[in-house]
Amino acid sequence: MLIRARWVVPVEPAGVVLERHGVLVRNGVIQGIVPWNEAPAGEDEVALEDHVLLPGLVNAHTHAASVLRRGLGDDLAAAPDARAVREGTLLACAEMLRGGITCYADAFDFPEASLEAAAAAGMRCSQGLLVKETPSGYAADAADYLRKGLEARDRMRDAPRTSFGFVPHDVSDATLRQVATLAAELDLPVRAALKPGELQRLLRAQVLGPGATLAYASEVAAPEVAVLARHGCSLAYCPSAELRQGKGRPPLEALVGAGVNLALGTGGAATNHRLDLLHEMRLAGLAPHDALRAATLGGAQALGIERITGSLGPGKAADLVAIDMSGPELAPRHDAVTQLVNSADRQHVTHVWVGGQALLSERRPQNALFPPLETPRNLWQNSQLRAGS
Amino acid sequence: MLIRARWVVPVEPAGVVLERHGVLVRNGVIQGIVPWNEAPAGEDEVALEDHVLLPGLVNAHTHAASVLRRGLGDDLAAAPDARAVREGTLLACAEMLRGGITCYADAFDFPEASLEAAAAAGMRCSQGLLVKETPSGYAADAADYLRKGLEARDRMRDAPRTSFGFVPHDVSDATLRQVATLAAELDLPVRAALKPGELQRLLRAQVLGPGATLAYASEVAAPEVAVLARHGCSLAYCPSAELRQGKGRPPLEALVGAGVNLALGTGGAATNHRLDLLHEMRLAGLAPHDALRAATLGGAQALGIERITGSLGPGKAADLVAIDMSGPELAPRHDAVTQLVNSADRQHVTHVWVGGQALLSERRPQNALFPPLETPRNLWQNSQLRAGS
Repeated sequence: MLIRARWVVPVEPAGVVLERHGVLVRNGVIQGIVPWNEAPAGEDEVALEDHVLLPGLVNAHTHAASVLRRGLGDDLAAAPDARAVREGTLLACAEMLRGGITCYADAFDFPEASLEAAAAAGMRCSQGLLVKETPSGYAADAADYLRKGLEARDRMRDAPRTSFGFVPHDVSDATLRQVATLAAELDLPVRAALKPGELQRLLRAQVLGPGATLAYASEVAAPEVAVLARHGCSLAYCPSAELRQGKGRPPLEALVGAGVNLALGTGGAATNHRLDLLHEMRLAGLAPHDALRAATLGGAQALGIERITGSLGPGKAADLVAIDMSGPELAPRHDAVTQLVNSADRQHVTHVWVGGQALLSERRPQNALFPPLETPRNLWQNSQLRAGS
Repeated sequence: MLIRARWVVPVEPAGVVLERHGVLVRNGVIQGIVPWNEAPAGEDEVALEDHVLLPGLVNAHTHAASVLRRGLGDDLAAAPDARAVREGTLLACAEMLRGGITCYADAFDFPEASLEAAAAAGMRCSQGLLVKETPSGYAADAADYLRKGLEARDRMRDAPRTSFGFVPHDVSDATLRQVATLAAELDLPVRAALKPGELQRLLRAQVLGPGATLAYASEVAAPEVAVLARHGCSLAYCPSAELRQGKGRPPLEALVGAGVNLALGTGGAATNHRLDLLHEMRLAGLAPHDALRAATLGGAQALGIERITGSLGPGKAADLVAIDMSGPELAPRHDAVTQLVNSADRQHVTHVWVGGQALLSERRPQNALFPPLETPRNLWQNSQLRAGS
């Protein structure tokens, strides 16, 4: 298959925009990127004359099923069961795919239910295994969370497009240390909130390292930037969620300058109301190519899957998104990447592929296993969470 | 004509959501709002089963033609001529209509060129007559700006869907006073920036009053709120533009509580990159019905045309926008107005009417006089401003 586009932005090498190139895909994997006039004959072709072709966007921090509480405010009072998590995650996947997101880092109770939804949708997912110390409808305590999480991973670790990580949430030093040890043993990433004053605790628990991603780090102090950089950490910045909490912008330029890997996330829809990474990319206020890297390769690196996705190059999965630049909202085309990052909406997303599988084409869903793109209103009107709200 | 919708939000009375109602339109004017089962027979019908029907959005502060410099940064270096202003305004109208905006307050050199574009697009426009003291390609000094502005108004004051206002920009006390005097004589509104420390100057020049709208008022102080309220002023808040300038949020709740009329604007696309009032409505962070009022009736009141547009009631112009609520981005429907304000994108805008004339229907342009909705890329690729950048 050859996907020809007016512009191809591979993200790696940084800052490159290839005009009138095509991405050659075989068995779901990118074979190469070639100029239109050097493309091999006889391929199935998709022609995107007015489009930018990018790596699929990576949402580096969300709580997918919380879309069921969209518009109800911050309070996640209702206790979801596995069915609600599956339904909510399907809805979140429908929204994310229509917005060009091909991969997301989730964190929710009932991780197997989440992954069933991601598999039905065809999305790539890094499933966060939550670890809490307070009882829920899913687990009794930290030990129970860990046991159930690891069992879920054992059962689903060979599923395609699936990876895992730990997400400790409001836990003691002892539990944090236990999570760090398990993560090191199993080579799994850890996502944790970096609240003010927490960095020393994360250091002591040996959480920090190339597999660690910090979220909610708006208030990171200058000396902490150096610590994060020295340990090779990633930062998952969620602009909307942090703005809504009245927080400022982290020192992104200083973090990137020091070598911290920057990723972008939407947070959950209960607070943010939208799982829209194009919106987060704009709000981050970075230089256009830096914003695009954070929304793609930066996210993949944070999830530990940068060898699989996040940029367009030979050997990488064909996770792609096409954005139609012909609308009046994106004119004039002084610079394609600038207009894309500053001005593109989800309405301009026309095609999405994951592992070479077309999931959205000319804005229409292509995956027969995944009905909510067509008829969400029938599926979600009577959800259990709604009754519990 | 009867436009049936799942929900009708008239904005006035405040907070009302009418389920399964229809808006009856005759000769471009709203006759009434009736339940589906009480609608008169024999009308042409538009059935919007999954939609919210609202008053058209009012963009209370923009510089329409500056879309030509979208993505080029804040510096408006190139001097536009009348043709560039007409082209830029057409492009801006295409973007605004597709985003549910039916009326906008403009401010640009060459006001007749702007109004020609608004007329071709079919939009309602309050044309701001700029008054500057520095020479431009349009006028030599304040006297020249005033003379040309008033001549433009004389020639175009009877044009349909058209009104006027003064927009003094960085002028001396004497010019400000002259503008205020002329505005009072001609019963025209005045839009001015409220920079820190400027309120006394605006008071002395007798600018403040029910016809005055202040923009860029993020830094308004508590005693100033009372002054604005006492004089019956409006405030045009442009969240994106002010965030980009690193400014905070004005004390909106205190302003509204004191009785200041709140409107919303996009500012110009040179800085904001988008003329998207749904986006500004979300960013304002108001309670949903307050945000919707600011984006409709609040804007109309700021422009002095609240008897014509801004809410849905008998005798008002049929300026309407329909938003399809069936997408996954807007599910579940806990509350239609909350989901609309927090989560709706321009992609959900399906129908737009101005004065009963359908300009957008099922997302397709209906106005044959207005090609850029179909083929903006042909019109805008070679604009003069681009060459000048």
